[in-house]
Amino acid sequence: MRATIMYAAGDVRVETVADATIQQPTDAVIRITRACICGSDLWPYHDLTPDAAPGGRPMGHEAIGIVEDVGSAVRLIRRGQLVIMPFAFSDGSCLFCDEGLNTSCVHGGFFGVGGECGGAQAEALRVPMADGTLYPIDVDEDDALMPSLLTLSDVMGTGHHAAVTARVTPGKPVAVIGDGAVGLCAVIAAKRLGTEQIIMLGRHAVRTDLARAFGATDVVSERGEAAIERIHALTGGHGAHSVLECVGAEQAIATSLGIVRPGGAIGRVGVPHYGAQDIAGPFFYRNIAIGGGPAPVRAYIDELLPDIMEGRIDPGRVFDRTIGLGEAPDGYRAMDDREALKVMIRP
Amino acid sequence: MRATIMYAAGDVRVETVADATIQQPTDAVIRITRACICGSDLWPYHDLTPDAAPGGRPMGHEAIGIVEDVGSAVRLIRRGQLVIMPFAFSDGSCLFCDEGLNTSCVHGGFFGVGGECGGAQAEALRVPMADGTLYPIDVDEDDALMPSLLTLSDVMGTGHHAAVTARVTPGKPVAVIGDGAVGLCAVIAAKRLGTEQIIMLGRHAVRTDLARAFGATDVVSERGEAAIERIHALTGGHGAHSVLECVGAEQAIATSLGIVRPGGAIGRVGVPHYGAQDIAGPFFYRNIAIGGGPAPVRAYIDELLPDIMEGRIDPGRVFDRTIGLGEAPDGYRAMDDREALKVMIRP
Repeated sequence: MRATIMYAAGDVRVETVADATIQQPTDAVIRITRACICGSDLWPYHDLTPDAAPGGRPMGHEAIGIVEDVGSAVRLIRRGQLVIMPFAFSDGSCLFCDEGLNTSCVHGGFFGVGGECGGAQAEALRVPMADGTLYPIDVDEDDALMPSLLTLSDVMGTGHHAAVTARVTPGKPVAVIGDGAVGLCAVIAAKRLGTEQIIMLGRHAVRTDLARAFGATDVVSERGEAAIERIHALTGGHGAHSVLECVGAEQAIATSLGIVRPGGAIGRVGVPHYGAQDIAGPFFYRNIAIGGGPAPVRAYIDELLPDIMEGRIDPGRVFDRTIGLGEAPDGYRAMDDREALKVMIRP
Repeated sequence: MRATIMYAAGDVRVETVADATIQQPTDAVIRITRACICGSDLWPYHDLTPDAAPGGRPMGHEAIGIVEDVGSAVRLIRRGQLVIMPFAFSDGSCLFCDEGLNTSCVHGGFFGVGGECGGAQAEALRVPMADGTLYPIDVDEDDALMPSLLTLSDVMGTGHHAAVTARVTPGKPVAVIGDGAVGLCAVIAAKRLGTEQIIMLGRHAVRTDLARAFGATDVVSERGEAAIERIHALTGGHGAHSVLECVGAEQAIATSLGIVRPGGAIGRVGVPHYGAQDIAGPFFYRNIAIGGGPAPVRAYIDELLPDIMEGRIDPGRVFDRTIGLGEAPDGYRAMDDREALKVMIRP
């Protein structure tokens, strides 16, 4: 079968690899019908060294697929089902899965990061702990909702996690940092949770236009101190109650701390690429909370799926390009050049 | 009138100062019937420089008193009422007071820190914004409940804030860092919120015995890595869901980060005396939240007062010494030597 392998920064290839097969009795193998490239895949695209990925890293952690085979201990998932594959695998039964935090499953792990599992930018994939990991959906594999359903494997659930951990509340202003797919989904999530004022920090018209379509009421194109001033001006001088940090860069966390108001919360879902932070000083005296981390998107599907199926939200609009598997290297380039917002792959 | 003044580290004096008087139409003047020394008063007792407090700093921020005079614009507070004085003053009507965060009142401030107001370790005190700040209680000024009622001005409300911001939840383990009055009140608060397992980190028998009496189920006397191991052993290997950080020292925050389990929260109320912290790494990947700050004790009185009046909680047991105003310097020494847990002053 063919799969996308990254050998080093900028070096992405689609190659023939060993077929995905059942290795544990709790495994399933899925044929990938939709995959995509994530903003977080661009971090290794910038800085992966060959030493860090001997033999290459199979890429991709978001997918929808058809179950082709299941191990002998799989009880709930059946051959032929169409399933959403969350970016993390989880047993569905441990303490943390029970609490809805599948990304801390005591037996779990992540796809597409060079661990025991392969990547989803491929023709097929072995999925550990299939019963706990996969989420069957009763939809045709070419349904028009497929782009939105695919976002439940990561970006829509991750945007929702930013909103939940930033304690989005009706009547209290929200700011979203990051105009990538996660930031845009965070706008959808904030609106869904009933807030009225959603400020998007971004400067690319295509993206900020989409943010407005999703529910952003204000767009701030300034950066740094100027952005902080602008947001204070837009919020009665106090700042945002909920800050959804969807980037993970040093400036993003600094801006978050600058715009959050007393008693507010920062929900961060951008993979952190920043150093130690001063959490004494104003952070303490203003009673600011910070939370977030890898989103338990598996647990959020129950809540988000009906809104997609019934047309109330349409996160699939973040995909602005569709390619075949062989074009994956160009898909990376296009996202890195910001020529494409988010690239869908149809293997 | 007489008041307690700190001139420098270790230099506390009781002196005659100008009488407290109405200065703004929204002021009240109270005659102090009970005050006390706070663990946080020991920070300047260790490090106050004469330059930082020219002319001396009036000390004390916790009190119960009788209203002696009110300004012309005071509508709710009346002469002769017995009132609880929270450690912060607040207008009771701004955005943040409405949200129950009086310690971020846009017109507010703190007693006993060298600002515009005096301190409560005195015969009398001017209280700004009396209607928003003071909480009248219908009790005799020498009622046996007076020690517990006095804790509503700070330590009981602060312990409760640690529990709330650490998201104490029935069925999930709690750890309390700090065996001072706030930590002990945090044990009361955690039990009140319905959790079953409360682990107190402490090593002074008088204090840990009181913690057990208040509801602690386990006492951990180890420190550093050994404490972290012990707490993991006590919690099925995962750590505590809620960590109530009631100290503010570098080791306390490090221990907090070491013992909090995935999806858990640190509620911190100890005034921070620590440097920048790594909030990327495990803090992010485990979805840990951190919150807390100066407790809005004014807002918490509504919830906590009935439990004191009806005998369900007895936080006044943290007071183990009562002195007259003239003995305040020795009260500081006794608390600093850990000879006394918390000292009450009857001016």
